[in-house]
Amino acid sequence: MPLITLTTDFGTRDWFVGTMKGVIARIAGPNPVVDITHGIDAGDIHGAAVALAAACPFFPHGSIHVAVVDPGVGSSRRALALETRSALFIGPDNGVLTFAARRTAVLRAIELDCPDWFLPCVSRTFHGRDIFAPVAAWLATGRPVHEAGSPVDDWTELRWPAPVRTATGFDGEIIHLDRYGNAITNLPGNSPGLVTGHSRVVSGRFTARLESCYGAVAPGGPVAVAGSTGFIELALNQGDAAQQACLHRGDAVHLEISPVAVP
Amino acid sequence: MPLITLTTDFGTRDWFVGTMKGVIARIAGPNPVVDITHGIDAGDIHGAAVALAAACPFFPHGSIHVAVVDPGVGSSRRALALETRSALFIGPDNGVLTFAARRTAVLRAIELDCPDWFLPCVSRTFHGRDIFAPVAAWLATGRPVHEAGSPVDDWTELRWPAPVRTATGFDGEIIHLDRYGNAITNLPGNSPGLVTGHSRVVSGRFTARLESCYGAVAPGGPVAVAGSTGFIELALNQGDAAQQACLHRGDAVHLEISPVAVP
Amino acid sequence: MPLITLTTDFGTRDWFVGTMKGVIARIAGPNPVVDITHGIDAGDIHGAAVALAAACPFFPHGSIHVAVVDPGVGSSRRALALETRSALFIGPDNGVLTFAARRTAVLRAIELDCPDWFLPCVSRTFHGRDIFAPVAAWLATGRPVHEAGSPVDDWTELRWPAPVRTATGFDGEIIHLDRYGNAITNLPGNSPGLVTGHSRVVSGRFTARLESCYGAVAPGGPVAVAGSTGFIELALNQGDAAQQACLHRGDAVHLEISPVAVP
Repeated sequence: MPLITLTTDFGTRDWFVGTMKGVIARIAGPNPVVDITHGIDAGDIHGAAVALAAACPFFPHGSIHVAVVDPGVGSSRRALALETRSALFIGPDNGVLTFAARRTAVLRAIELDCPDWFLPCVSRTFHGRDIFAPVAAWLATGRPVHEAGSPVDDWTELRWPAPVRTATGFDGEIIHLDRYGNAITNLPGNSPGLVTGHSRVVSGRFTARLESCYGAVAPGGPVAVAGSTGFIELALNQGDAAQQACLHRGDAVHLEISPVAVP
Repeated sequence: MPLITLTTDFGTRDWFVGTMKGVIARIAGPNPVVDITHGIDAGDIHGAAVALAAACPFFPHGSIHVAVVDPGVGSSRRALALETRSALFIGPDNGVLTFAARRTAVLRAIELDCPDWFLPCVSRTFHGRDIFAPVAAWLATGRPVHEAGSPVDDWTELRWPAPVRTATGFDGEIIHLDRYGNAITNLPGNSPGLVTGHSRVVSGRFTARLESCYGAVAPGGPVAVAGSTGFIELALNQGDAAQQACLHRGDAVHLEISPVAVP
Repeated sequence: MPLITLTTDFGTRDWFVGTMKGVIARIAGPNPVVDITHGIDAGDIHGAAVALAAACPFFPHGSIHVAVVDPGVGSSRRALALETRSALFIGPDNGVLTFAARRTAVLRAIELDCPDWFLPCVSRTFHGRDIFAPVAAWLATGRPVHEAGSPVDDWTELRWPAPVRTATGFDGEIIHLDRYGNAITNLPGNSPGLVTGHSRVVSGRFTARLESCYGAVAPGGPVAVAGSTGFIELALNQGDAAQQACLHRGDAVHLEISPVAVP
């Protein structure tokens, strides 16, 4: 039976995530459900889109990924299923699915508009429980996605901020700050010309050389590495770069592939 | 095999929840265990009772719900199993089970006093691990609940604060503040006479009309909706009502079904 | 199929834990995975070692315990598997496994140096995903641990702070502060001569008698109990001893088995 994942901004203080799992178990039995994260900031669609895109390539083929960051719940925003070669993505049509779905091609998009796939009573405030969990569970039991609603041709896409080529390298930005205070950028870690120990990354007053791992510099020292998502990360070895160097999501980052002068 | 749920104030920084799952796995094998929440405030019996009651109707028939908020652990407070038509509820006899168990009738109450259902060594501080997890696991394997202890006729009940009819509507109170800062009240969302766009809800300096969804008002605007638990919620659309309007659990809420004057 | 547990400092805001579970599911199918905790402070090897040692005795025989607190990730620190009579322990060779593995004898230690047990691309920053999760999953499928790498004779051990005998009892220290603010010490709760209601525990300005449970004193009162880990805990009944009495990890604790004078 395919694995179901959950990515939400529900937090873990309330009963919301557990309730979704109850709904899934009622429909699909003891189906495996994996939490990607429920720690997305309230309403942060972009943050959830990044988390899902970072995690989903590591799940089994055919997994069903449910993402619910849904400030428009109860309004006229559509509920969506996107089928790709490798997975099914379920969530509100507000862009939360797009970074993940775009990793491979979208084969089919379905607006989830068949009430018989939902709980009998659909609230106006908790579609995670009433729509997305039951749809995911029915899909896990083998019901085909095209029966879950009507095909659609367009859906909301978030813009992925592409890095910009400059004379000396690339301009990019910070996409995510992780729990260690490492700043994940949109600069690919395999950009042509990058030289470990030589190329330099700058964001505000943070400056570091690209190294092969955090420990290549002394504890507390600034370092840039090709991180686990494939993008360059800014870090302090065993320290919190976000806090110490005051880095924020969206901050500009400059990658100097071959800096002229050594600072 | 029936699903086991856990609702506790253990948090997730320590090893307490994981250890309970280890105990369950030793007895019942790879039985599904679902976390409702472990983010209940330390010792907040009422909060756990609300969470369990909100979540449990969505779980499969026959689920075994374990709730451990247990400031009296190690004292003479009893350990309890309550059997209803739809589920089994396990926890300390301090009221934590009662809102959930009362949703349907309690068919049988058992004081858990058979040490052979417990771990061989029962600590004085962690009955979640030593008593409640093994009892739930044995029940999941099919041992009948009446063999787990002695029948009892009375148990600790928490008072559910019933709303009070007034000349113009109902007086109630705030029952729970969720992670978005929405305030869930004890006022039923289907109270007779309620008119969307007309009925008004007031709590301190927070005033809002009842609307069909958060997005019926502008971002940041106050709104009341019939929430996913069946009760009226006070919210700011895409904002944090608890913080902005200084709402607290227990605050009085007035529902004016047909307010005379429009504010 | 053996159960896999995870103990990390990854937190739950990012996608790191979910991604490890995706990797495990790809290799081992719907294998049970239990979180011990992901709330270890960033880089706190000692804290993770304590959590794993406290939890692991309660898991099924043959469980595979993965601990990833790994400030040296990407450097030359080794990846390790320790086999004991009761379990397999997987993690970086920085001491994080040693308190748990030392509970029984280590039968075999293997340096994980077979890349075909890893993900095809091993990042320099996330060996939890790229090395430890796949190794644990392959072990869960039944591949023998001695094929996962090369036998080694020595590995990094953390020092367990043993209590010191004094004229009147023992000197020890605080090992862990739990979510309730209880302070777990390294003083065994079954030390010979201990008398409930008589023996006294002192740490800084905190003084309490050893009692059988928290509730043996009035709410808010100081109390010492033999806690669920087997060690003496300092607590305030229904209060937060760490905060109120300013207790910290590493603080000295004096156990007076037979105090001469009653305070």
